[in-house]
Amino acid sequence: MKNVIIYGSTGTIGQNALEVISRQKEKFNVLCLACKKNKKLLVKQIEEFKPKYAYLEEKDENLERKYKKIKFFFGEQGLIEIANLKEGDFYIFAIPGIKTLPAFIECIKNKKKVALATKEILVAGGEIIEKMRKDYYFEILPIDSEHNAIFQIIKYENKNLRKIYLTTSGGPLYRKRKKNINIKEALTHPVWKMGKKITVDSATMMNKAFEIIEAHYLFSLNENQIDVVIHPEAIIHGIVEFIDGTSKFVGFIPDMKSPINYVLNYPERVNSGLKYIDFGKIKRLNFETVNQNAKWLNFAKEAIRRKGSHPVVLNGANERAVEYFLEEKIKFQDILKYVEKVVQSHQYKEKLNIEDIFYYHNWARNQIEKIVGGQK
Amino acid sequence: MKNVIIYGSTGTIGQNALEVISRQKEKFNVLCLACKKNKKLLVKQIEEFKPKYAYLEEKDENLERKYKKIKFFFGEQGLIEIANLKEGDFYIFAIPGIKTLPAFIECIKNKKKVALATKEILVAGGEIIEKMRKDYYFEILPIDSEHNAIFQIIKYENKNLRKIYLTTSGGPLYRKRKKNINIKEALTHPVWKMGKKITVDSATMMNKAFEIIEAHYLFSLNENQIDVVIHPEAIIHGIVEFIDGTSKFVGFIPDMKSPINYVLNYPERVNSGLKYIDFGKIKRLNFETVNQNAKWLNFAKEAIRRKGSHPVVLNGANERAVEYFLEEKIKFQDILKYVEKVVQSHQYKEKLNIEDIFYYHNWARNQIEKIVGGQK
Repeated sequence: MKNVIIYGSTGTIGQNALEVISRQKEKFNVLCLACKKNKKLLVKQIEEFKPKYAYLEEKDENLERKYKKIKFFFGEQGLIEIANLKEGDFYIFAIPGIKTLPAFIECIKNKKKVALATKEILVAGGEIIEKMRKDYYFEILPIDSEHNAIFQIIKYENKNLRKIYLTTSGGPLYRKRKKNINIKEALTHPVWKMGKKITVDSATMMNKAFEIIEAHYLFSLNENQIDVVIHPEAIIHGIVEFIDGTSKFVGFIPDMKSPINYVLNYPERVNSGLKYIDFGKIKRLNFETVNQNAKWLNFAKEAIRRKGSHPVVLNGANERAVEYFLEEKIKFQDILKYVEKVVQSHQYKEKLNIEDIFYYHNWARNQIEKIVGGQK
Repeated sequence: MKNVIIYGSTGTIGQNALEVISRQKEKFNVLCLACKKNKKLLVKQIEEFKPKYAYLEEKDENLERKYKKIKFFFGEQGLIEIANLKEGDFYIFAIPGIKTLPAFIECIKNKKKVALATKEILVAGGEIIEKMRKDYYFEILPIDSEHNAIFQIIKYENKNLRKIYLTTSGGPLYRKRKKNINIKEALTHPVWKMGKKITVDSATMMNKAFEIIEAHYLFSLNENQIDVVIHPEAIIHGIVEFIDGTSKFVGFIPDMKSPINYVLNYPERVNSGLKYIDFGKIKRLNFETVNQNAKWLNFAKEAIRRKGSHPVVLNGANERAVEYFLEEKIKFQDILKYVEKVVQSHQYKEKLNIEDIFYYHNWARNQIEKIVGGQK
């Protein structure tokens, strides 16, 4: 019986994880459900999974009174306390942003099993986490479908690699040549049902940029070994090309329950009722190269080359710009423009500690606020 | 330095193997070149690779006089003597038919490394070879692109398999609805340049039937775990589907040098100048299910279920029928019809020794001869 903790239980990853767990209740016990503020759904999940612990960003005495058997955690410190739970076996990180970076680091120190959906943890904290390998042995199980796919190959064969391909369905704007993108268009993803922030990132392709940075840290590959290929059907999620010309592809029906089921049961495989690829239905897999000069791609490669404060600022600026777009305060095409401005104007620092990361993150968010404020 | 022996050096596999070796001369020494009768090409190969041994089916004193330093082997016994060469490290089996089955068995006994292109060895001798696992440890490295692909996955992950797919380009007659197929049509393969016999087998799909039987023995899978999918681009060669819904695909540009390079260097991978998959060029991979009631498919499944004399007769009858077709003595559509007749009429025997295999093989060939003779 594995005691599972879900940071982000009410998000799409969290919900999918609970669905996978509900089909394998004999193997997994939900120890802790953590969410930011979706109380209604959290209560529903508490009723069903009866966790020993729960988390909300802000203290809630009503809930505490209602569920006296549950110990509630709150605030930044609460995230860390959860990472320190003795009974905790398996931690799923699925809260967007860098808030759980300290908890992730704590988990590694505590030798907990970690599964990662929050790519910002590696985008901003990758360098720090990488350095921890000196003192700790740990394996990060990737939930992102692309990294999960690559992991399923590299786990077994990690020598003689030439490069990897992360696939992308192309995002909400694939083949749309329109100039003014409204919110609805940016939020209509052809394949994946995800949160708003990540869906906008899919539209700008910044999501893929962050995935490249994530892949860099997960698989120790340099920026020339990580490529992206458009694959609208989203059946193939990752490709590893070896030096002899042979490539291995990993495919599954686009359903986040698949990588979640994989990491939960890893290194075993368990049939949890997911659909198999049906070639009678699929018939065709399309592939298209990406523009190697695209802004998002260069953002990613530069971030890998420079490291330090660079990816932190990239992520922070993008996060705030997307928020503004979702509030309809800036135009779609301004997102990357503003992000670029902030990245280029920032005073680069090479070696960051965890406080620096939060400093640069907030600095970048503030810069976007200044730009948008100045606009008015 | 590996001492390599090539049974079938003048065939397409043999020629490709020598090309791969010629690019990695520091690693491979051609110890023995064996061919049936293509003396002209053999002489050319001898001049280039200077083997210590050579083989022709029939004794040739001229060649022996010309190349005094080379020891020549001849006849059935010669094939076995080659398998007993002390210096022999790595044996490539690429002579069509079951002639080298005894040599293959001898190689296993002698603990030689074996790479297999001759699928008839497993189709007819699979049961005997399987039983040898009790007394000998051996690994058969498959050269057939489909089996090579599957091997590259199963080698690393062989648990929790649901099924495998062998891909087929569809063969020379894919999407041709014509009834009377002439030799030229049956010999025009859209992807692979191969010998005549195997190209006709691709047209009748019997090649795929034999590959299913081969896969059964190579990977210990039952007939329901081996499926076939049409994939005209021939980029993906094999697919392994796991019980959790995830599939791994292995792809490479259709060039037999790729699997040959793989087996020669196994378990390492070496860049020998083969092309990488270029998604800018490939753009699209098509897949199509096969008719699950096709005669060739049922031949394969029945052969796996029944074993014993059944697959031996299937292979022998098909071999002779294809020869007749190539001699323009029977029509294309008669090949499988006659094969079916012989398979159905034969007196089944369960346990065969090696002599029985040759007996049933020749019996099946004779039956085809009787049918064709009776036609006239």
